[in-house]
Amino acid sequence: MITVNALDRLISLFSKLPGIGKKSAGRIAYYILDNSPSLAQNLAKELSVLHQAIRRCSVCGGFTETDPCLVCSDLNRDRSIICVIESAQDMRIIEEGREFLGLYHVLGGLIAPLEGVSPANLSIDKLLNRLDGVKEIILALNPTVEGDTTALYLQKTMKNYPIEITRLASGMPVGGNLEYIDKLTLSRSFRGRVKI
Amino acid sequence: MITVNALDRLISLFSKLPGIGKKSAGRIAYYILDNSPSLAQNLAKELSVLHQAIRRCSVCGGFTETDPCLVCSDLNRDRSIICVIESAQDMRIIEEGREFLGLYHVLGGLIAPLEGVSPANLSIDKLLNRLDGVKEIILALNPTVEGDTTALYLQKTMKNYPIEITRLASGMPVGGNLEYIDKLTLSRSFRGRVKI
Repeated sequence: MITVNALDRLISLFSKLPGIGKKSAGRIAYYILDNSPSLAQNLAKELSVLHQAIRRCSVCGGFTETDPCLVCSDLNRDRSIICVIESAQDMRIIEEGREFLGLYHVLGGLIAPLEGVSPANLSIDKLLNRLDGVKEIILALNPTVEGDTTALYLQKTMKNYPIEITRLASGMPVGGNLEYIDKLTLSRSFRGRVKI
Repeated sequence: MITVNALDRLISLFSKLPGIGKKSAGRIAYYILDNSPSLAQNLAKELSVLHQAIRRCSVCGGFTETDPCLVCSDLNRDRSIICVIESAQDMRIIEEGREFLGLYHVLGGLIAPLEGVSPANLSIDKLLNRLDGVKEIILALNPTVEGDTTALYLQKTMKNYPIEITRLASGMPVGGNLEYIDKLTLSRSFRGRVKI
């Protein structure tokens, strides 16, 4: 079988990325090769500076080019609410929603004993040190076993603080269909029903 | 909305690649950032040398690091059969099948009048100049309107040459199911039925 080494190496690197199989990696590599060299050069440039340009915010743990990050240093944001998230990527997703105007705290994972992730591995102490003047903690954790476990743990840990602890509503997604909803989600939708 | 510029630029570049939407581009960028810097550095290195390392073979038009390419310069390959393909990527796919041991010819597209692609835009003259000593031309073009049109055109163009012109069989894919096969494919399967 005849192959082209430089292409093979690129395809093999692309297929390590999440959601990209061997076929997609091939399609992408040939697309870049067929395209003008500037796309490859721009990608190369951004990738080569990525880890130098971006660090973790020392306050919230999010990815940032400045420290503290633009959210933590923005005096217009509501400092009495902290939204607790699993990973730095969640911050981007919530920011895109333009609904939340408080601060963030990145846990860096969820409690998962089977995978060896205990509360000590998460950024929980740092969160507890940020609670001065905070009125509400919103747990924006995924409605999964790990998310539920972590939410329960944080709730217990903070139960003696004079802080309201809330969690994002779980239920039917907008545009969803009762026919296709799973039983657990349906059950949560009933338990979390709201007066209209 | 708070964003991180270096990440934004990378995400916007990734979302230009085929099959990668904005969400996937985000997931990929964060994956690379969470990973050790070596993945980003290796990707950057391969991308930056890609267009210098790889050129078009002056004989078949495939991507190669040497000219002529490893297939065209391999004396063990059957020089009496040329497999005509739409793009250089098809060569990789056929090579992976390890079924075909002749030479290739990349057309660089398919005839598509509505998109402004006429026979003059394809590498057809170059193909006609390669026919000395060739006994068979296999048209490995997709069974689409454009593929059919191009196959018909090539067949007419080469009808006065003492060469057998064949086309890849079209029909039910292995593992397919009569219930889900479309009418056109079913019709082709009947017309192309073989004696067992």
